[in-house]
Amino acid sequence: MRERPFPLPPGSTVGILGSGQLGRMLAMAAARLGLKTHIYCEHSGPACDVATRTSRGAFDDPTALAAFAAAVDVVTYEFENVAVETAHHLERRVPVRPSALALQVAQDRLSEKQFIAGLSIPVAPFRAVGGVEDISAALAAFAGPCILKTRRLGYDGKGQVSVAPGEDAAAAWRRIGVGQAVMEKRIAFAFEISALVVRDLAGELAFYDCPHNVHAQGILRRSIVPARLPPDDLAQARRIAAGIAEALGYVGVLAVEMFYLGGSVAPGERLVVNEIAPRVHNSGHWTIDACAVSQFENHIRAVAGWPLGPAERHSDAEMTNIIGKEALAWHRLAADPAAVLHLYGKREAREGRKMGHVTRLSAKSECARKDAPEAPQGR
Amino acid sequence: MRERPFPLPPGSTVGILGSGQLGRMLAMAAARLGLKTHIYCEHSGPACDVATRTSRGAFDDPTALAAFAAAVDVVTYEFENVAVETAHHLERRVPVRPSALALQVAQDRLSEKQFIAGLSIPVAPFRAVGGVEDISAALAAFAGPCILKTRRLGYDGKGQVSVAPGEDAAAAWRRIGVGQAVMEKRIAFAFEISALVVRDLAGELAFYDCPHNVHAQGILRRSIVPARLPPDDLAQARRIAAGIAEALGYVGVLAVEMFYLGGSVAPGERLVVNEIAPRVHNSGHWTIDACAVSQFENHIRAVAGWPLGPAERHSDAEMTNIIGKEALAWHRLAADPAAVLHLYGKREAREGRKMGHVTRLSAKSECARKDAPEAPQGR
Repeated sequence: MRERPFPLPPGSTVGILGSGQLGRMLAMAAARLGLKTHIYCEHSGPACDVATRTSRGAFDDPTALAAFAAAVDVVTYEFENVAVETAHHLERRVPVRPSALALQVAQDRLSEKQFIAGLSIPVAPFRAVGGVEDISAALAAFAGPCILKTRRLGYDGKGQVSVAPGEDAAAAWRRIGVGQAVMEKRIAFAFEISALVVRDLAGELAFYDCPHNVHAQGILRRSIVPARLPPDDLAQARRIAAGIAEALGYVGVLAVEMFYLGGSVAPGERLVVNEIAPRVHNSGHWTIDACAVSQFENHIRAVAGWPLGPAERHSDAEMTNIIGKEALAWHRLAADPAAVLHLYGKREAREGRKMGHVTRLSAKSECARKDAPEAPQGR
Repeated sequence: MRERPFPLPPGSTVGILGSGQLGRMLAMAAARLGLKTHIYCEHSGPACDVATRTSRGAFDDPTALAAFAAAVDVVTYEFENVAVETAHHLERRVPVRPSALALQVAQDRLSEKQFIAGLSIPVAPFRAVGGVEDISAALAAFAGPCILKTRRLGYDGKGQVSVAPGEDAAAAWRRIGVGQAVMEKRIAFAFEISALVVRDLAGELAFYDCPHNVHAQGILRRSIVPARLPPDDLAQARRIAAGIAEALGYVGVLAVEMFYLGGSVAPGERLVVNEIAPRVHNSGHWTIDACAVSQFENHIRAVAGWPLGPAERHSDAEMTNIIGKEALAWHRLAADPAAVLHLYGKREAREGRKMGHVTRLSAKSECARKDAPEAPQGR
């Protein structure tokens, strides 16, 4: 492997696997720091318009990947479904951050849950499923509504089927349509949050405030910051995210989606991890507008071996995704004096496609304990 | 001229003349809105690394300029020394904003001063100079220290010579070394500010808070926001900037540098215009970090025919330029938790070259009247 100095000096090139909106926002953040970017993608996308350079190639083309590795100083990625073989192939030539281990753990729901549970961090009860009989057994064991999920390639609610005791296990298995799945017990929760942690090469951590996330049709709809979480629970959310990042020897931004079970549950048992994303995350887009240094810039800083920048929010924020044909109303959104508009430069406003987001800023509040419905009084 | 719809829909292309850091930050702002950018420049520079496309050509090459005009939906520029003929050549093919008139006025110090004085806005006393005898006459008339300035192509303190009564007029004329110049009376002032106004296609205006600007060796060193200006004077600074923008039929961000003479001068006579810049301005870089919508984004919004975004600051800010070899300390600046670092991706840290800037944010104060040394009490 060619020797590179870390921290990478300005003028160095960060390679990014993937050409979507996350790659685009990473490239724009790298540009703030005087770093160049080089996108590697199968199909050109929004990131290519703002990157210094783009290479098109298959993710399993060793020659094209080697040429890419030779042209960049570090590689990162915008999506967790990069094949582990691709990451290993690159890792022999250039540092890849976060490492292939993070990909390996995160892209398989079963290994992800096993890994997290192995750290004594709560996850919803789960079982590996290889056939109809496993579904029936899990339904009997969990004695309540469950979700059957593919082990791989699920995102934005895709690759999931609800199934409850008394329902047709065989039909659920046909609908999921893969050989390897996971059954998860549906758990009751007050709301969803995510913890966004960034870890640098030296192991230093920085945390963004936890957003309260609202989903619709399996797609993130809104992230509201700060989430109304009692301080002890907020601290626990951060400990959980830090624990996972440290166990993975992680470098970059890690998002940990969690269910918050509510204040009626015993302290210390109120947070259950749903899933992790080894990358910058949609629930952190508000950081562009409400923090001095965004999740995108801190991810770039981390992978480039730079010290982390300040992650405190200067304002409260509410981020709303612009999905599909909602983007046709761009002019109305642009004229809204309370909205900071971000559009990703995607041509077609296909259904369910994330086209942009708006951030609405307001004066910074302290963590909203007193009106937090779940916060027990006087703790 | 090919018909283009305004507002330009996302996916349209903004052409930018010039490849420096201002073009770079304009391109990054356009990307936030889903707009593509196309740089036209003689030599590639920092903007090329983040733009969708770059064309290299001379600014007096009609064929290359016509091809550029055909590839973009609107043209703007990052520097005011674009030849008026170039702007006219483009204007016949594609909208150019701000218009050639703004360039024509701003790139000649004499026409600039005549234009502003013609609006009954105070400027320092000035005279056109075409030879040594004009210098002597101006020194006699102004009866105090003066500055002899080239009419064209001065920036960052270049093209200026100090001259005072009793000094050698012929030597000053030789030093300035051009056929056309302007003599300006040096005036005493408390500090320098700039007014940053943006005007959209419909004539709507938005104002950024006025920074207090500190220069060293003729180069902007720091901009501090808010300037300690009494509210009436602040309002007057805005009226002046608005008056110039309206008289020019201006579209985009206009920067008006002013001397603030201080609270001991009669109200209404405390501000004197130094010069204007028909473009985004170094003294507005803090808006990237301290406002929901930066000067760069609002310039792009204006030239693309979009409604303006909110220009209020959410934080106080102090912007410091990183000049020449100071950029070698990038790692220290990156590690400063109070500094938001911006580097322009320039390779060589030449003396006097603007390599980047840092913004330091603090909690928003109201306009700092009570500790403003120039603010009279009780107004």
